[in-house]
Amino acid sequence: MEPRISLVTLGVADLERSVRFYRDGLGWPLSSASAGDVAFFRTGGAVLALYPRSLLAADAHLSPGAPGFGGITLAHNVASREQVDAVLAEAAAAGAVILKPAQEAEWGGYTGYFADPDGHPWEVAWNPYFPLGPDGSVQLPK
Amino acid sequence: MEPRISLVTLGVADLERSVRFYRDGLGWPLSSASAGDVAFFRTGGAVLALYPRSLLAADAHLSPGAPGFGGITLAHNVASREQVDAVLAEAAAAGAVILKPAQEAEWGGYTGYFADPDGHPWEVAWNPYFPLGPDGSVQLPK
Repeated sequence: MEPRISLVTLGVADLERSVRFYRDGLGWPLSSASAGDVAFFRTGGAVLALYPRSLLAADAHLSPGAPGFGGITLAHNVASREQVDAVLAEAAAAGAVILKPAQEAEWGGYTGYFADPDGHPWEVAWNPYFPLGPDGSVQLPK
Repeated sequence: MEPRISLVTLGVADLERSVRFYRDGLGWPLSSASAGDVAFFRTGGAVLALYPRSLLAADAHLSPGAPGFGGITLAHNVASREQVDAVLAEAAAAGAVILKPAQEAEWGGYTGYFADPDGHPWEVAWNPYFPLGPDGSVQLPK
């Protein structure tokens, strides 16, 4: 597994309120990839995403009050479906709990989740709409 | 505030266990900047840090069970003390709660914390030992 945090997703109670805070309050650039329930901000490194906390928990197959779930997930994006399977297998071999086996996502990608030794959830994702740059980072549209 | 996540710090129950997971299990490169209670991993973007969860909560002036605290903090590093003060002021003006006003850190830096609208804690830090690259990212030693 390459050393890379692709996205940090914050679970939020009120998406509009949080978008106002980051976009208008702090001046961060909202990406046009934002749609519906999710907002993405372009940064110098790991993308910041905002998503309703209950949906975020459900996506990771966690209850909103699960131990180790503080309403944040980290994502590690890869370039192919096969790499999703490979990274999840590597994490499991390292002792991680697989929260959600890799599967087709509604939005057209392929993703799964593992939990690290403290229960911190990591999504491993192939997202055909988010191309990766030469350094492996997600290249969000403006 | 520039759009940048400098570090993601995971609160852990057993630092050695977590270092084994990330270093030996996943193969991530541990930085020689790791010392005592903290471990840093070099990545393509945001640095991954591991730190005891109780100390992480204390550092952010939170109780370990505080709402919104799931044992993860995000850090935004800047190039000077003055920028720490400026970013905290900007966050407060945007409606953030200041968890910890900027102050000298034991390790020689200058940092403070704010909470976003959902209580997610952000550290704003000047760290003279972690130089910033041209893109603002933290440059960890090997």
